[in-house]
Parts: sequence; C-alpha cells; structure tokens
Amino acid sequence: MSNQKIAILGAGPSGLAQLRAFEAARRAGVENLPEIVCYEKQNDIGGMWNYTWRTGLDKNGEPVHGSMYRYLWSNGPKECLEFADYSFDEHFGRAIPSYPPRAVLKDYIMGRIDKQAILKYIRFECPVRWVAYDEATEKFTVTVMNHKTGEQEVDEFDYVVVATGHFSTPNMPYFEGVERFPGRVLHAHDFRDALEFKGQDILLVGASYSAEDIGSQCYKYGAKSVTISYRSNALGFEWPEGMEERPLVTHLDGDVAHFTDGTTKRFDSIIMCTGYLFHFPFLPDSLRLQTHNCLYPDNLYKGVFFQNNTKLIYLGMQDQYFTFNMFDAQAWFARDVMLGRIQLPEAEQRRADMDQWLKRYDGCSSCSDSIDFQAGYIRELIDQTDYPDFAVEKQADLLKQWQLDKKEGIMTFREKTYRSTVTGTLATELPSSWLDIKDDSLEGFMSL
Amino acid sequence: MSNQKIAILGAGPSGLAQLRAFEAARRAGVENLPEIVCYEKQNDIGGMWNYTWRTGLDKNGEPVHGSMYRYLWSNGPKECLEFADYSFDEHFGRAIPSYPPRAVLKDYIMGRIDKQAILKYIRFECPVRWVAYDEATEKFTVTVMNHKTGEQEVDEFDYVVVATGHFSTPNMPYFEGVERFPGRVLHAHDFRDALEFKGQDILLVGASYSAEDIGSQCYKYGAKSVTISYRSNALGFEWPEGMEERPLVTHLDGDVAHFTDGTTKRFDSIIMCTGYLFHFPFLPDSLRLQTHNCLYPDNLYKGVFFQNNTKLIYLGMQDQYFTFNMFDAQAWFARDVMLGRIQLPEAEQRRADMDQWLKRYDGCSSCSDSIDFQAGYIRELIDQTDYPDFAVEKQADLLKQWQLDKKEGIMTFREKTYRSTVTGTLATELPSSWLDIKDDSLEGFMSL
Ligand SMILES: Cc1cc2nc3c(=O)[nH]c(=O)nc-3n(C[C@H](O)[C@H](O)[C@H](O)COP(=O)(O)OP(=O)(O)OC[C@H]3O[C@@H](n4cnc5c(N)ncnc54)[C@H](O)[C@@H]3O)c2cc1C
Ligand SMILES: Cc1cc2nc3c(=O)[nH]c(=O)nc-3n(C[C@H](O)[C@H](O)[C@H](O)COP(=O)(O)OP(=O)(O)OC[C@H]3O[C@@H](n4cnc5c(N)ncnc54)[C@H](O)[C@@H]3O)c2cc1C
Ligand SMILES: NC(=O)c1ccc[n+]([C@@H]2O[C@H](COP(=O)([O-])OP(=O)(O)OC[C@H]3O[C@@H](n4cnc5c(N)ncnc54)[C@H](OP(=O)(O)O)[C@@H]3O)[C@@H](O)[C@H]2O)c1
Ligand SMILES: NC(=O)c1ccc[n+]([C@@H]2O[C@H](COP(=O)([O-])OP(=O)(O)OC[C@H]3O[C@@H](n4cnc5c(N)ncnc54)[C@H](OP(=O)(O)O)[C@@H]3O)[C@@H](O)[C@H]2O)c1
Repeated sequence: MSNQKIAILGAGPSGLAQLRAFEAARRAGVENLPEIVCYEKQNDIGGMWNYTWRTGLDKNGEPVHGSMYRYLWSNGPKECLEFADYSFDEHFGRAIPSYPPRAVLKDYIMGRIDKQAILKYIRFECPVRWVAYDEATEKFTVTVMNHKTGEQEVDEFDYVVVATGHFSTPNMPYFEGVERFPGRVLHAHDFRDALEFKGQDILLVGASYSAEDIGSQCYKYGAKSVTISYRSNALGFEWPEGMEERPLVTHLDGDVAHFTDGTTKRFDSIIMCTGYLFHFPFLPDSLRLQTHNCLYPDNLYKGVFFQNNTKLIYLGMQDQYFTFNMFDAQAWFARDVMLGRIQLPEAEQRRADMDQWLKRYDGCSSCSDSIDFQAGYIRELIDQTDYPDFAVEKQADLLKQWQLDKKEGIMTFREKTYRSTVTGTLATELPSSWLDIKDDSLEGFMSL
Repeated sequence: MSNQKIAILGAGPSGLAQLRAFEAARRAGVENLPEIVCYEKQNDIGGMWNYTWRTGLDKNGEPVHGSMYRYLWSNGPKECLEFADYSFDEHFGRAIPSYPPRAVLKDYIMGRIDKQAILKYIRFECPVRWVAYDEATEKFTVTVMNHKTGEQEVDEFDYVVVATGHFSTPNMPYFEGVERFPGRVLHAHDFRDALEFKGQDILLVGASYSAEDIGSQCYKYGAKSVTISYRSNALGFEWPEGMEERPLVTHLDGDVAHFTDGTTKRFDSIIMCTGYLFHFPFLPDSLRLQTHNCLYPDNLYKGVFFQNNTKLIYLGMQDQYFTFNMFDAQAWFARDVMLGRIQLPEAEQRRADMDQWLKRYDGCSSCSDSIDFQAGYIRELIDQTDYPDFAVEKQADLLKQWQLDKKEGIMTFREKTYRSTVTGTLATELPSSWLDIKDDSLEGFMSL
C-alpha cells in the first residue's frame, strides 16, 4: 500500500483528526505511510474554532468559513468531546469548568497538534476549486487556488478526504416583506457581537442551538427583548423576562413582524438562526454528498465512505451530539481502511449495513434515543481500531444529564460540572453565574 | 460557421448585450446562427441592477452578486450610457432627468430585452462551477450547478463568453484592532440601507465612487457624521457639515480610529469602500484573466479576446466611465468574430496592438485623458460592426462636464441636465433638490 497519496480537504477538527491518525501510525512505527497533502482555505488550523471578524467573503474573496462569534461558550459539556488520546488534564494541567468559552476549547484542540509533525502537510489559503475522478487511472485530480502565490495547483491523489464542515453555508429563508425591513437582517453565520444589538428588540427565526445560544448571548449583553420564532417546535425553555417564543413569522410589514398566531411585534434587527446547507461547490455530482443535517446521512458507509466511490471519504458530516471524539473515531477507521488494515465489504453489503443503521435511526423517537444512536455508531468504529477506548456510553449518559440541566435552567446550565470519563477528574465550578462572566478570553477564563 | 455553440456566463448588462447582438443578427436575416446557452447565478436578468436584501451568501449558498443598495441613483449622466439601438425616449416615451435611481435604470435595461426572444437562452440559478478547455477537441466543457433541479449540468461549447462582472467580490483590507471593534464592520458590497446608520458616526475607508456615494447617502438619510479615510488621494469635494475626509486609518483601539495625521475619532460602524477583486473561481489558471480594476486590462485583445485562447471572450472587464454602450460595442465586435465576419490577427499582432493601447493608457495623466482613452477604445470597436453609430466623443465631453459638475457641488450635481447624443432630447430637471427626494422607486420617480 505504499506510494499512495491522500488529499485532506480542510484542517478543522475533522481534518486534523485524520492527520493525527496517520501521525499516530507513524509514531507506532508503521512504515511506507501514504503521502499526505491537506488543503485549507483559511490561514490557520482549527476550522470553525477560529474566530473571524469577517463576514460574507474573506480577504481572498472566498466565503468566510467561520460561524462562531464573540462570547461563544461550549454549548455541551467538554467531558463529551474529550479526545481519548489527549485529555483536558494533560492539556491544562489542572481541572477546569465543564463549559469553556471558544478560545479555551480552541487552545485545547491546538494543544494536541504536534505542529512540527503536522503543519508541514498543510497548505494554507488554498481553497479547493475542483475535484475530478478518472475511472481509468482510479485517481482524483484536485485543483486548488493558492492565494499566497496567486496561482492554482493541480495534483493527483488516490484518496480524497472531505473534511470541510457543514455549519458554514447559511440556509437563508425568505419571508414576505423582508426586503423592505428597515434594519439589519442577517444569518447566524454572520452574527459576531451581541453588543451590536444592545438595547434592540431582536427577532430570531429558528429553534435550535443557534437560536437558543444567540438569543441567550443577546439577552446577556443587553438586548431590550429577544423573540424566538419557531417553525416546528418551540425550544420550550423557561426564558427570563424579556425573552419569549412565538410561532413562525408569516410576513413583515415595515419593521413589524406578523406571526401565525395572529400576533405582531416591532423589531430593530432580524437574525435567521435557520441552520446550514451542505455545500460542496468543488465536487461534481458523481462525488457529491447530498443530505440535510441529520445523525445518519445516507450513502456513507460507516458514516464515512462514499457509497459510489469508496476512495472518497467524508468526515464529520453527521449532526453532532458528539464532536471531536467522533471525528477521531471516523479518522482512525478511515486511516485503517486506507492502510489496508480493514477491508471494505462489497457495495451490496455496504448498502445493507447502511440500511440497518438507517432503520435504527428511524426508530429514534426521543433525544435520549438519538444520543444512544450516535454513541452506538461511535462504539462500532472505535472497537475496530487502535484509537484509545473510551466510555462513549457513559458520555451518552452525561449528554442526557445535559439535556435535563438545560431544561432546569437555560441561563444556568453552564454552571454545572461533570466528571471526565477519560481521567475521572471532576470539573471545577464557575466562581459566579454564567450571566455575570462577560470576559470570554483564554486568560480571563483560566484566571477565574 | 454553423453548429457552433456558445456559452455566455452571466445575464447582466454585458451578457444581455451579447444575447442582443446575436438577436440583432437573427432579425437582420443571418442564418445558421450559433446555438447559445446563457448561465446565470441569480433568478433574474439584470446583473448588478437587481437589488437584493441578501448579503454574504444567497439562498443557494452562492456568494450574493449584488452590491447595489436602496436609494442608489445613477452616479453618471444617463446620456453617457444610452444604448445606441434603444433610446431613453423610446423606452419612457418622454424626457426624464439625467440621473435616475436604480429602479428606473433597471427598467430601461429590461425594456430593451425582447423577453420572448431572449429568455429561452437563459438558465437561471445556474452558477458556473468549472470550465475546462480541451486542446485536442478545441472545445470547452462547462459544468454548472442547477439549483432548481439540485443537479449539475455539463455541456460542451466552442466559445465561452465571460460576463460575470467585477464589482461583486469585495476587497476587504485588515486594520489592526478591527477584530475588536465593537460595532458593525462591513464592505460596501454588503451595504443595503443608509437608515441602519441613522444617528451614527460612521467611518468609510476608500476614496472612490462607493465612498463618495455611500457617504452621501448616509448623510442624506441622517447619519450623525461621515468620515472618509483615503489612502492615496482625498476625493476633495466640498462636503457639507458633518462630512469630512481624513488620511488613512492606521489602527483601531476599541471604537476609536487612529489616522496617519495623528488624529483620532470614535465610530459606531465602519464601511470599507475599498473596491473589488477580479474573482473567477470557475476558471483554471490557463483561462483566468488576472488584473486589477483599470481601463485596459492586459491580455485582452480589443479589450475582449483572451490572448492565450481567443475562443474565450471577456466582456465588461474594464473600469467604467462608459458602461452599457461600451458593453454593446464589445458584444457586437465579439459576435462578428464568432460569426467569422471579422478575422482575428495572429498572436504577435494582437500583442503589438495591446501594447500600443497600453502605452497610450500609460500616457493618460488626467481624468479627461482617461475619458478620451475609453471613448477612443469604444470608437475603434463600433467602427467595425453594424452597431448603430453614436457620438461617443460627444459623450466623452459630457463626462468631462460631469466631473466639473461634481466638483461644483457633490450634493447637487444630480440636479444637472444633459442632452442625449442619440435623440437630441434634453433631460428634464428634478423638481426639487436631490437631497430632498427620498423615494427612489420607479413610480415615485416617474411621477416627480
Ligand atoms: C456557531 C457554532 C458553534 C458550535 N459550538 C460547538 C460547541 O460548543 N461544541 C462542539 O463540540 N461543537 C460545536 N460546533 C460544531 C463544530 O462544527 C465542530 O465542533 C467542528 O468544528 C467540526 O469540525 P470539522 O473539521 O468537521 O469542520 P470545521 O470546523 O467547519 O472545519 C472545516 C474546515 O474546512 C475548511 N474548508 C472549507 N471549505 C474548503 C475548501 N473549499 N477548501 C479548503 N478548505 C476548506 C474550512 O476553512 C475549515 O477550516 C459549533 C458549530 C457552530 C457553527
Ligand atoms: C454599487 C454599484 C453602483 C453602480 N452604479 C452604476 C451606475 O450608476 N451607472 C453605471 O453605468 N454603472 C454602475 N455600476 C457598474 C455596473 O457594474 C455596470 O453598470 C454593469 O452592471 C456591469 O454589467 P456586467 O454585466 O458586466 O456585470 P454585472 O452587472 O455584475 O452582471 C454579472 C452577472 O453575472 C452573474 N454571475 C456571476 N458569477 C456567476 C457564475 N459563477 N455563474 C453564473 N452567473 C454568474 C451575476 O449573477 C450577474 O447577473 C455600478 C456598480 C456598483 C457595484
Ligand atoms: N456552542 C454553542 O453555543 C453553539 C451555538 C450555536 C450553534 N452551535 C452548533 O451549531 C450547529 C448548528 O446549529 P443551528 O441551530 O445553527 O442549526 P440546526 O440545528 O440545523 O437548526 C436549524 C433550525 O432552523 C429551523 N429552520 C430551518 N429552516 C427554516 C425556515 N425556513 N423557517 C423557520 N425555521 C427554519 C429549523 O426548524 P425545524 O425544526 O422546523 O426544521 C431548526 O430549528 C449545531 O451543531 C450546534 O451545536 C453551537
Ligand atoms: N451609482 C453609484 O452611485 C455608485 C456607487 C458606488 C459605486 N459605483 C460604481 O461601483 C464601481 C466600484 O467603485 P468602488 O468605489 O467600489 O471601487 P474603486 O473605484 O475600485 O475604488 C476603490 C477604492 O478603495 C481604495 N482602497 C483599496 N484598497 C485599500 C486599502 N487597503 N486601504 C485603503 N483604501 C483602499 C482605493 O484607494 P487607492 O486610490 O489608494 O487605490 C480606492 O479609493 C464603480 O464602477 C462605480 O462607478 C456606483
């Protein structure tokens, strides 16, 4: 299997997991490892975890990847995303609270990277422009724009690993009259600083994580009122005064929104928290994953291998209860297939396996079911590789507890503490309420 | 020359001019016209002239094309962009003022289109993904994403006409501290409504048309103060109270900007009016025009034919004193080459011709020189086709007058009237000062 060549597209947590998986093999003495090139659009590793002040298009005219914003804190317990091969204790040298701000989690992701070993594979400011597959040679041709040189680069690969994320291209609905709304209308993807909305009456459309968290941030940083408008189900938390949920907007009349329950309200700004599109402008249809955001996108064997062409690998394309450790589980599994350690079954068997998972997914009726489903998926992967075993089922229990903690108090759940399943360490408590801690910097958090 | 197939990329004024040029030939009885397919990213014709409330990415996840905003009026006299084959008189049936708002100019552009004859060629919501050229077959393969069907389309062409515009992909500079600025930071491309900035102190960076016009709009619609920061030269107009120019920003400290002259000022929002990038993410380097915004991009013979591959045609890639009539001049010329009516010289002669024009361009030292340069360029094109002759030199004189009128009063120049060189009609006067007319709708303007 030597002389293979692998392209990894994207250097976020998923792409970095793939690099780390091969690095782990190299350290374990495996020889004749494939040649790797990782193409990254941004000028740094970390993917979504890089905060950027930019919105819309970046300095090279490419769509800005980042959807994160100032004051963003982890929305799930860090104990459920801990790398099994690099614990929080190892990184920080001491216990920290369960819900760290973005900068702290980014520091942790970065800490695992042996920069000397890994950065040499990554070509920054190189958005992938086009990928083609040649049936005859069984090779992929990848064309990227190297913005550092101003010239394109074209190379051939045996495998392509798509790790470009799927929370970056906004799904932006239209509501009648929005084109005449006199204030700012933006998607959560372009939300950067809650302070911009201080003193404002703001309308959020959508009822999932972004609406919940952007609403909470805006409340925390002084919005006058926050109204969350849902299509299917209300979030149903006990909101503090000044926050409320209403059913879907029907239309806008100047700065007044009308809702399906017949009520109306005037707003200063509208933030569409309406989720993201799977968007792969660099892939021809024959290679393009087509799915919506769910726990088991179809046509990915083991959630990873593209059914029509198993030399094409997708990482992190699931909706996510688990994140970093799931990406690791996928990357180690993909690595072992690429190294020839694991044999892929034939198309029909892969189809049958996917159908079985899809059926199981279909049977999930509660949030707990879904958490167990994703834990089960991860379990199957880690059992087949040398990725350090970890108690994914116990983490699933923590996630169920997290759901209850959120119900108990949407403004206070981040004050809860959980115990690491990797090291057994119990998280420390936040010294004051989350609503009172306004500094989201690494330094600020570590000196709390 | 029959059975040729042509792809036109973009259905803005330039792409529409190309369609119109072939349509004119068809009406003149020319047979065996090539087959044409026009791919357009948006869901309508009109290009930049379609106002959109969206910013960043559009409903399909593609970069929003539009950079225009509410309350935008023509910034040059309409008499200098009049189609020679479709006058303002023919469209409106009567004289109108010289500087119409966007909706009025859009109506004029649309009026020339014989929708039945032309719309059938256009495939909407079809952003071009990738163009490849095969030296052996001498054909282009164009891949587009058809968002209406959710599937890609691939087709082969003899010629490709790139008419995708070059005022759409923002050039967004970085200034130290901007990532900590607590208000909105946006590019002119994302500017939509001056009312959002009412009562604010706003900083505009850049000193060209966008800074001048967005500054004026914000002043007109109630910004508290407008500061324009220039890098090379100040705009130098006599600004009303509340507007001023300062040299370049050096850095930001919280909400305070520091300028190279040592002064500082606090701002609520920052709008970067720093121009646009030439961005063709669908073209390989061998076909990609590389230039900055200027009157004579290199490697385009007659401003149109790509030197490395003359089956690739670029329209409207120049900086623009003249617009619609220049695109027409280019489209008719390009059509006649594609129809075999005009023979292109060999590469060396083309090179010599371009060098001559570049030398002449080099000799331009004033704004008047530049206007004459572009008029001379257009003259050369229209003399070679059956596009109706028009007095481009007289229009150049109008443009010089326009420059003087702006110097005389940056808030009043739109009240001036000019005489059409096509019909001899003198524009009517605005009934009140431009600053007092706040309704920019077609209906509002036509009933002034
Ligand atoms: C607002 C928000 C908050 C979140 N908060 C949490 C949280 O608290 N906890 C949690 O665990 N998860 C959170 N997530 C989920 C987050 O997406 C994952 O944690 C993780 O970042 C996914 O990793 P990834 O590598 O798959 O994708 P990404 O992190 O999105 O990385 C993809 C990489 O691919 C690059 N790329 C994209 N297109 C191209 C191209 N054409 N060419 C080259 N490179 C390209 C991008 O620049 C990027 O670096 C959040 C997501 C969002 C949007
Ligand atoms: C803010 C602003 C104000 C202006 N004001 C004036 C004015 O007052 N007077 C004037 O004469 N000119 C003005 N202009 C100049 C304007 O650009 C031209 O008038 C004209 O629109 C250029 O026509 P075009 O067809 O070359 O490009 P555009 O009008 O930009 O049209 C390009 C078309 O290509 C499409 N496209 C882009 N990428 C793709 C793709 N990958 N696949 C398929 N389709 C694609 C776009 O959707 C668009 O429809 C202004 C420009 C700006 C930015
Ligand atoms: N760390 C943090 O605090 C944080 C903050 C924000 C986001 N995130 C992460 O970011 C990821 C994405 O979350 P997300 O909330 O942006 O997306 P999401 O989970 O996919 O949710 C999308 C929401 O938009 C709604 N929606 C879609 N189209 C709509 C339409 N036309 N009209 C009305 N509503 C519409 C959906 O409603 P239906 O239910 O009706 O389909 C759903 O509520 C998640 O992984 C999340 O964990 C984390
Ligand atoms: N109808 C209307 O009213 C209207 C309104 C807006 C725009 N437009 C049209 O839109 C087109 C584009 O105009 P535009 O003004 O956006 O672009 P532009 O004419 O290309 O001007 C770009 C400006 O940005 C400055 N700049 C670039 N990089 C900078 C940096 N790093 N720091 C500081 N300044 C920087 C340039 O300064 P230097 O001189 O130093 O390079 C220049 O002043 C034109 O065709 C115009 O007619 C029309």
